[in-house]
Amino acid sequence: MIPSPPAEIGMPLDAVDTPALLIDLDAFDRNVARLAHALEGTAVRPRPHAKSHKCPVIALRQMAAGAVGVCCQKVGEAEAMVYGGVPNVLVSNQIVGRSKIARLAALAKQAWVAVCADHPANVTDLNDAALAYRVRLPVLVEINVGMDRCGVEPGEPALALAKQIAASPGLRFAGLQAYHGSAQHVREFAKRKDAADTGIEKTRRTVELLARHGLSCELVTGAGTGSYRFEAGSGVFTELQAGSYIFMDADYAKNLAPDGSTTTDFEHSLFVWATVMSRPTKERAVLDAGLKALSVDAGLPWVAGMPDVEYVRAADEHGKLTLHDPARSLDLGIKLRLIPGHCDPTANLYDWYVGYRNDRVEAIWPIAARGAGR
Amino acid sequence: MIPSPPAEIGMPLDAVDTPALLIDLDAFDRNVARLAHALEGTAVRPRPHAKSHKCPVIALRQMAAGAVGVCCQKVGEAEAMVYGGVPNVLVSNQIVGRSKIARLAALAKQAWVAVCADHPANVTDLNDAALAYRVRLPVLVEINVGMDRCGVEPGEPALALAKQIAASPGLRFAGLQAYHGSAQHVREFAKRKDAADTGIEKTRRTVELLARHGLSCELVTGAGTGSYRFEAGSGVFTELQAGSYIFMDADYAKNLAPDGSTTTDFEHSLFVWATVMSRPTKERAVLDAGLKALSVDAGLPWVAGMPDVEYVRAADEHGKLTLHDPARSLDLGIKLRLIPGHCDPTANLYDWYVGYRNDRVEAIWPIAARGAGR
Repeated sequence: MIPSPPAEIGMPLDAVDTPALLIDLDAFDRNVARLAHALEGTAVRPRPHAKSHKCPVIALRQMAAGAVGVCCQKVGEAEAMVYGGVPNVLVSNQIVGRSKIARLAALAKQAWVAVCADHPANVTDLNDAALAYRVRLPVLVEINVGMDRCGVEPGEPALALAKQIAASPGLRFAGLQAYHGSAQHVREFAKRKDAADTGIEKTRRTVELLARHGLSCELVTGAGTGSYRFEAGSGVFTELQAGSYIFMDADYAKNLAPDGSTTTDFEHSLFVWATVMSRPTKERAVLDAGLKALSVDAGLPWVAGMPDVEYVRAADEHGKLTLHDPARSLDLGIKLRLIPGHCDPTANLYDWYVGYRNDRVEAIWPIAARGAGR
Repeated sequence: MIPSPPAEIGMPLDAVDTPALLIDLDAFDRNVARLAHALEGTAVRPRPHAKSHKCPVIALRQMAAGAVGVCCQKVGEAEAMVYGGVPNVLVSNQIVGRSKIARLAALAKQAWVAVCADHPANVTDLNDAALAYRVRLPVLVEINVGMDRCGVEPGEPALALAKQIAASPGLRFAGLQAYHGSAQHVREFAKRKDAADTGIEKTRRTVELLARHGLSCELVTGAGTGSYRFEAGSGVFTELQAGSYIFMDADYAKNLAPDGSTTTDFEHSLFVWATVMSRPTKERAVLDAGLKALSVDAGLPWVAGMPDVEYVRAADEHGKLTLHDPARSLDLGIKLRLIPGHCDPTANLYDWYVGYRNDRVEAIWPIAARGAGR
């Protein structure tokens, strides 16, 4: 079953049922515009990561602001995007397994769909499926630029895989996937820049090595909300995969600017809307939003606009608050906004975004790829 | 959109797509039977917590094995249970807010539905709705027996609230909700028993106090998979709310038996089925199951049957494995089973259970209350 939306268009925000996933549309629009503005005059275009929002409506708004397309991590996400009208999707991940590869190849008949690879056997499987479905599938080599997860090593291993792709009749070598995940959340600016720069240099040397062997990288793609300015100014990357910038979670907000402040390019626009469901003591309140309403893997949520109220513990369906100011009134039934620690897995818990402006519901967008894990 | 099931009936397990949520039906059946067996000869009946599975099919199997009904935490879960044929549901939680209370009262016309309260204003709202919908709603007083979350304090505060409920024409005082959440995961047996016993004594004294004031507790309900034997033997509790026992997550498996071993009453029956999607080095493999395929709030998952393979890090869509045995072969495309750290929020990430027996798919059960957070 899909739960019904927790709101209706035109409803005052206060009438929206909880838990709900809210978007402050003014802040969201500013975030989308700011990334576009930051890249003006460069040759780099955004390819925002749709794993953050899982919503074709948002993807199309990002494209209207200049994005070349989106990234996805799963075939199911890519299907939701293409069926939702998004014409250009890079699956920035390895797709392994017969049924998933068949779906990918079939989807490539309906839109521009590319994929990444880091293993010769997977390249063979992709080629077989592409030939079976009569598509020419663009494939990027993923290189490990520092996070030690997927990807072949930069340099010669990347060259060998690129050659295999280029020699596969069903495939087209399309460039490099070079995402440095662990650089995104390095708090100190100089260290974050160092980490990103190390990855950029590995990417640059690999691009040059491939060029010397006649393999041109049409796409060099990577970066995230924590590092995008470094890759943008590198002269190597052609696309940026920042995703969280539209929402800004509590974790990204802990990254520091060059002056040591927490000033960021983006605002919090995503909130979990929650109700005070119990007020057992002066110091304690309990919300109806716990582990099934927000993801705590990157830390507990913050209470928006109430620095004296601390979300101290998440249980399955409860969020326990400590009220540090005895003057704070937080009566039973009061609703408040939580800033999730980590946007991406939080959005995956909901079926609808409730967009509001001036405290009134203006948009209810389906999270079409919610649960699309395959 | 609801993702399609990752399997078909009759399919060999190895053909099931990933990530998928598997139930080993033999182990599951044994777990259900073991709780029933443990309570034979006592006056206590199981009221398993449906927040663990969110699936009416499972609830009805539990009732066939002797459960009196189920618990839920949310009105949406209760709706899914009642619409799925479950005739008896206790919402073991406070329900706050006009629309939710209206849904609760309306649902009580279709099945036996009870709810908990810990605040006079909430009792008033429940009474108003019950009168409007012409139902007599059974209401339990939730008491705080030690976890300091919701609930009024035992003794006089509980008595005052019980009197208010009993005096409300739309309501019927039905007993006490006394769940000691923080006792469940105390690892050492004697300390876990101490914590549970402290809560049991507070409950007993409150039951006695209420009886002296003419308020009889038809239901005294609580307990979980970590403590149920203590409440079962207390002579105070009439129902047990254990939920995780059907699945047994990695966290509950860390509880120790009286002899200090990890022997438990129940087996792991719930698994996340995952594929090796990248094999960058001898020591490293990457799975297609990360934060959106399992909840890490209570720790990382274990790899079933492979003690030499460690799940060391979860990213949004990736699970990084460290292979401690160089002889372990784990080729690209291999599928394996993960034991989730915490069952409840993991089940909430999926739309289907895939039940298997003898390595063949035998059941595909909809997780009807997935996402039913309101």
